[in-house]
Order: sequence, then C-alpha cells, then structure tokens
Amino acid sequence: MPNLDLTLLTDFYELTMMQGYFHHESNDKTVVFDMFYRSNPSGSSFSIAAGLEQFIDYLNNISFSDEDIAYLRKQKIFDEPFITYLKEFKFTGNIYAVEEGTVVFPYEPIVKVIAPICQAQLIETALLNIVNHQSLIATKAARVKWAAGDNNVLEFGLRRAQGPDAGIYGARAAIIGGCSATSNVLAGKMFDLPVKGTHAHSWVMSFPTEFEAFKTYAKLYPDNCLLLVDTYDTLHSGVPNAIKVFKELIEDGLKLKIFGIRLDSGDLSYLSKESRKLLDQAGFTDAIISASSDLDEYLIRDLKLQGAKIDLWGVGTNLITSKDCPAFGGVYKLAALYDGTKYIPRIKLSDNPIKVTNPGNKRLLRLYSKQTGKIKADLIILNDEVYYANQDLTIFDPIAPWKKIELKANTYIIKEMLKPIYINGKQVYKSPTTAQIKAHCNKELKTLWDESRRLINPQPVHVDLSNSLYNLKQKLMMES
Amino acid sequence: MPNLDLTLLTDFYELTMMQGYFHHESNDKTVVFDMFYRSNPSGSSFSIAAGLEQFIDYLNNISFSDEDIAYLRKQKIFDEPFITYLKEFKFTGNIYAVEEGTVVFPYEPIVKVIAPICQAQLIETALLNIVNHQSLIATKAARVKWAAGDNNVLEFGLRRAQGPDAGIYGARAAIIGGCSATSNVLAGKMFDLPVKGTHAHSWVMSFPTEFEAFKTYAKLYPDNCLLLVDTYDTLHSGVPNAIKVFKELIEDGLKLKIFGIRLDSGDLSYLSKESRKLLDQAGFTDAIISASSDLDEYLIRDLKLQGAKIDLWGVGTNLITSKDCPAFGGVYKLAALYDGTKYIPRIKLSDNPIKVTNPGNKRLLRLYSKQTGKIKADLIILNDEVYYANQDLTIFDPIAPWKKIELKANTYIIKEMLKPIYINGKQVYKSPTTAQIKAHCNKELKTLWDESRRLINPQPVHVDLSNSLYNLKQKLMMES
Repeated sequence: MPNLDLTLLTDFYELTMMQGYFHHESNDKTVVFDMFYRSNPSGSSFSIAAGLEQFIDYLNNISFSDEDIAYLRKQKIFDEPFITYLKEFKFTGNIYAVEEGTVVFPYEPIVKVIAPICQAQLIETALLNIVNHQSLIATKAARVKWAAGDNNVLEFGLRRAQGPDAGIYGARAAIIGGCSATSNVLAGKMFDLPVKGTHAHSWVMSFPTEFEAFKTYAKLYPDNCLLLVDTYDTLHSGVPNAIKVFKELIEDGLKLKIFGIRLDSGDLSYLSKESRKLLDQAGFTDAIISASSDLDEYLIRDLKLQGAKIDLWGVGTNLITSKDCPAFGGVYKLAALYDGTKYIPRIKLSDNPIKVTNPGNKRLLRLYSKQTGKIKADLIILNDEVYYANQDLTIFDPIAPWKKIELKANTYIIKEMLKPIYINGKQVYKSPTTAQIKAHCNKELKTLWDESRRLINPQPVHVDLSNSLYNLKQKLMMES
Repeated sequence: MPNLDLTLLTDFYELTMMQGYFHHESNDKTVVFDMFYRSNPSGSSFSIAAGLEQFIDYLNNISFSDEDIAYLRKQKIFDEPFITYLKEFKFTGNIYAVEEGTVVFPYEPIVKVIAPICQAQLIETALLNIVNHQSLIATKAARVKWAAGDNNVLEFGLRRAQGPDAGIYGARAAIIGGCSATSNVLAGKMFDLPVKGTHAHSWVMSFPTEFEAFKTYAKLYPDNCLLLVDTYDTLHSGVPNAIKVFKELIEDGLKLKIFGIRLDSGDLSYLSKESRKLLDQAGFTDAIISASSDLDEYLIRDLKLQGAKIDLWGVGTNLITSKDCPAFGGVYKLAALYDGTKYIPRIKLSDNPIKVTNPGNKRLLRLYSKQTGKIKADLIILNDEVYYANQDLTIFDPIAPWKKIELKANTYIIKEMLKPIYINGKQVYKSPTTAQIKAHCNKELKTLWDESRRLINPQPVHVDLSNSLYNLKQKLMMES
C-alpha cells in the first residue's frame, strides 16, 4: 500500500480490547492466534493463499501519527497511558505463514501470530482484510484459468472492482492465480505485471466509419492489434472491416504481429465460429479471436465444450469481484495463551462440531505421495511433535475418526507449510516477485489431483489432526 | 484517496486510444460521454449515487509523475510527442453529475463528461471504479436499513471487504445509505463517521472465566458496554454472566449508560427472545440486544417478522461486499461529438432495444407530485429543451410508447438533476460532508413510493425520454 498509512485500518473493538489488556495485569501476555477459514469460495476444493506481501508492508508501516493520536483522543474513551503506549507501538512477535501462491484447505492455519496480546489483536483486521481479499481473487483466477485450459486469460475488471485497491491488488492476485496479463496500468507498474488492451466501442464511434476507426488503429499498433468488431454488426460489418484492414495493411507492406478481433457481445460460440470461418477464408488463419462479456469459469468451460473458436479470454466483473462468492471467510482465533513456561491451549466451542476451533500452538505439515508428487493429506500437529517420513504413518479424519489412511514408510514426503515471516519482531522473510509467486502457484496447482480441481463438486483434500491434537481437542471439549 | 497517486488507475486501452486520438487530426475533438447503468443491484427499483467526492479527488490529483512516465516509456508503445502531452496533462472539460446520496434509476445519465476526447477517455476507468463501488454499497445499505426499520444498523465488514479501500470507502457509502456507524476506525477518521465496537470472542477466551472477562470489560467501559455472550453457551453462561456483571456494577455504584449484549451465532430469533426474558426478569428492560452473524436485508426482515427482540444490527460481509450482487454495472458511453458548432449525436446499437444507448448531449429532469413530494418519473431530454411546470405534460415509456402519463399544469415540480461539477476544467462544486450527504440521502429515499422500496419485485420508477430525444434515437437506429 504505497504511501497510504493504514495504522487505523482496524475495527474499533481491537482498540477498546487493547486498552483493556493494557490495563489488566496480564497486558503483556503472549498469545497464539491462528488465521484459518472454513470453506473454499465458489465450491472449490482448495484456495490459493495470497496477500502476504501487502500484509508485511502494512505491518512494517504501523505507526500512530500525531493525527491518528489526536483522532483517538477525540473519542474520549482512551486514556493517556494507553495513548502513550500506542505512540510507541512496535510489533515484537513472531509470525508464520504459508507462502503466497500455495494451495490451502479449510480449517488449517495459514497464518500464525505469536505475540503480546495487544499487538496480536491490533493487526487482526488488516491481516484478514488483505489476505481474505487476495486469496479470494487468486482462487477465482485459478478456476477461470483451469476452465480456459491452454488459452490465456486476461484480467479486465478494474471498472467493476470494489474500489481502487480491489482493482490493484485484485489484479495482482489474478495474475498469481493464473491470468497472463491485466488491463490495469497502475497494478502493472506496482507489481511489474504484463498489461494489455486495445480499444473500446467509443474509438469506433468517434470515427465516421468503422473501417476508418480500424484502419487508424491498426496502422498505429500493428504489433498488437485486436479490433473490437461488435459496435454495429459483428459478422456483417465488424469482421469484414477488420479483414479489409488487415489486407490493406499487408498490401501497404506493414507486418502484423499479434492481430485479430475481439468479440464483446452476442453468442460467443456462434460468433466465434463464424468469425473464424471468415478470417480463415481470407487467409488469416493466424488471426486471434479474443472474447469478453460476462465470462466466468462456467461459461468458458461451456463455450469450449461447444467448440467456440476463442483463443484468448478477457474476464472482468466475475473475476475481480469473485461474483458468485465475493468474500473469503478467513477468521482469526485465539488458540493458546503463554503462561511464561508453556502454551495453555484455548478452544472456542460451537454447536457445530466442525466449527469448534483447533486449540494450542500448532504446525501444519503437508504429506505428498513420493511417486506422484500429489498431495495425500495435510496434517495439523502440535508445535513440539516430530514426524519422519521413514516411518509408517496412520492419519484419520477428525470428524469421522474411523476413516483412516495408512502411509507406508518412505512412500511419502513431509513438507513444513508455515514459514517464519517475523521472529521477535524482525522480518526474516523476503517476498518473492509476483512473477515468482505466480510460478510457485502454477507448481502448487499441479500437486492437486485432477479430481480436486473439478469446478463442481470436486473431491475434498484431507486435513487431519495428529493424535495428540485430536486428543487435546476432545479433552477441552469435554471439560468445558 | 489520501496520498495515493491514482493517475495510472486506468485500463491500458485508454492510453492506447489516447495516443491514437492524439495523432489523429481530430485529437482535440470535444465529446460527450454519459455514465449510466442498466439495472439496479439486488433487485432494487433504485440505486443511490455515491463516490463523487473521491472521483473529484482523483481528478484533481491526476499528474503523470516521472516514475509513471518512465514506466510508460518502458512499454515501448508510446512515442515522445504523446509522452510530452501526458506530462502536461490537465483536465479542461465540463462535468455534470447527480449529487451523492441521490436516488437514481437505470438508463439515465448520472455523470456527464464533456471534454476533449483524450481527457474524457483517460478518466473513464477510475470514474466507473469509484462510482460503481460506492453506489453499490450505498444502495445495499439503504435496503438493509429499510429492513431494520427504526433500529440502527452498524457497518461491521472491514475484515471481509475486498481490500483496504473497499473497507474504507465502503464504510463511507454504507453510512450514506443508512448505517448509523462503522467499526472501521480509519474510515471514521477520514470522513468523520461515528465508530463503534466492543469486544471479540478472543477477549473472553483470554480470561480464566467468562464472568471475569465481562466484569473487566464493563468496569472499563460502563458508558458503552455490549457484552458478547456466545463464546461458550449463550443462554446458560453468556446472558447470566452478563446480568451478574450488570448487577455487581450497579451495586458498586457505577452508572451504566449504553449496555446490553451481542448475539453472534445460533438462532437469533429464539436467542434474542429468551435473552430478552432473562434481562427483563433481572430488571434490565433497558439493556440493548444487538445481533450480528451473516445478516442481510432478507434475514433482518424475517427475524423482525418473527418478533426477534433485537434492537441493533451489526452487518458485515453481506453489506460490505453486497454479496448477492457484488458489482454495480455502470458504463461510460460516447453520446455525441462536437463539430465546432453543434453536437453530433452518436449511438451504440444492440440486438436488445433496451441496450441501445441514448444519443446526444442530454439533461436529466425529475418530476415530482406537488401534492405528495413523491417522484412521478424521470425525463431525459436534449440539452437545449425547456420545460415549464405550469404547462401540461405528457410523457411516455420509451420501450412501450403507448403507455402514457399525463401531468396537469401546476400539479408537478421539475428538478434539474445533473449539477455542474467542473466547468472548463475548474471545479465549481464543493462536496458536502458525509453527514450532509447521509441526510440528503435520507430525504431522497422519502421521494420514493413505498411500492418502489419493497425488497422483492418492487414497482419500477419511470425513466422516460422527451419527444425530441425519442425521435432522434429512432432516426439514428433506422439510419444505421
């Protein structure tokens, strides 16, 4: 968030609680908070974690300015000792997180904060806001890209995004999840993303004729010239005019590089097939047909199933807002209190067994098949547990514990998923570039079985608890 | 957008088109663009316009920095004369817009830009992004507040908003549309909004007992003390502990001001009624019952219909993302070209008659019943038309022209809806405060008939075209 001070980007109750902790004898009690979520957006079996880089930016720039302090004083609810504490606020804790671009699953910790309770509480809202948003859009992008198969997907949603940041960070997340470029110039500049775009209907309408509009555009941009053909009549005016322009340009000795048409209305299956015929008949078999217009993963899949001749997909509103599921439900729950010598696990109950939180200071392991490289299961364990891949391992479903999986020694690989990001307040992790995160995400997606990538009703990935964690949870549930 | 340079917050094609216009002989051609939208979100019959203040901020701060210029040069698509033009970019046009907080309807111009085409094109994306987002959230908030009736609604969505801006500007829009306060401290500071909040589950879990957690909190904040009662068991632990704390505080001589409980899970109808009984039996008939947990306008309406004893509603995800309809479909279409003496109207066709754009330089009138103050219809007219309320007026539906409404002379009031915001590049409009906009919105909502405020299948409000505009549109459709 360049130049924007987000210190006050927090819910008011974080500050009232902080003052409470500050004045209570246990004000510097160290605690463990987990960020996790309960269900994947859009019916997916997985999500893509994203937003860590911006959360780090936020955390590194927390500082209560004189203006912030004056504002808080005006609320007449905070006393001077607490305000003095805020003026000197500094994060001194530990944070562990899965890296951006990683596939993650419900109920597992994706960020773990171990810090004095006042600090851990302040950062809750911004952490959730940033990681929820980018994880949502990265996940949606992965679905859209999966539907598009080998075709490229362009992120075109800025004008429908929920404010500037939603456009900017949404574009970043969309690239991480699978888009090849964005129309958003500011996001392109900030994160070194490929930016793309040609022209709008207004370009065509501002010229006396469609032909003149196309010819002017093509002469200016012969290297990247996708002409929007639906202003008046796609098949009877738009495509014929585009073909005429391509021909004239070649006759004039201009070399076209990336060229073709864009369809933005009407039935994209029918229009793309008819346009393909017209272009091919004119000898332009290498002309690209791109399409936009209310696309999402389901429509792209159906259009491809019908043999639509579309090479490039521009996806706007449905991607940048994750329209069918516009919120990622990440939550931040207290898991343990440190009493000076050990972590005292805490639990939040619920009538619904699956909603009871996992107590204690925990780690997250991922178990892969050695043979296929695919994920067998994730395993949430207590912090001091040790697992070796050269030992047989039996894991079980924490809701239906009779459902077991046996992993034979040396047939699986164990990966530690939560990386240290801050240790004692010092940043120990450097965010990769967005391009590197995108490449990591692409590899991550390949660790999922095809059955778990299906758009509708995919096979869930197992997230199990270690024996020790399971038993601890049962004990705390019974005791309370 | 304090301190954040949004000059590059634009789609790449705006820049490629601008360079095209710049090099074409007609580069300084003045044009008219309309921002309008085609359907109201969430099945509403109206929307609330919002975001103008932030659009003005954006426009006043457009400036291509050296960094921006270096980035654009790196794209190797823009030439030096055009880059020089960008360096000196200045908006010199006229902008007219409906004021924030105004109710608006599909197909009518809510913002009109008259400017040299390069300028008009650059600002398209940010205008749409900002106004689409805030209008969406203001509209949703008006629906939620309508369902809540006389009860107050609090905006609690920051952690699920689509990035920081969505939380900040979404809170502003939610207040405009009808919320009484937000949990978002930064939005509160930026727009002088009331901020509210008490404590989370983590507060309760960090104490040895719920009672101790409540008592500590209540002693700190006796003036505003809503205790969250569902961490362990609402009716058997949470509410009884809250009552015990309220009693002890009074015995200790503390005066409770705003106090009560918050329900955040379970069946809110049942739990609120049972909690009300327990509180009343203990003598706390003035204790407030607030509720949160996946609320939206439909659930609030149904809970109220069932007699839920809830006085205060905290609405998060469903409001801040407008979950059932997370995008407002504002578009920006070329309506006319100025040839030096007159406006040449332009039209964008579509197979769907309702999607054909309204051509020409236009104005928007609103016609009210003199007797009731309610809206009779909106009337889109050509810029040079004149209407007097002391003359009879017949208006008709532009899609079904046989459907007519007769307005008798002196029984109606005419209001000009598009206010001048910029004239010749000079800002001539000063945004009211958010509180003033909220008050304006509240008055605006009263100009709607009850039938148009219904949540489901409300009566649409008429948006008609003047005879001259209707005839011009028919002529252009036939000619093309």
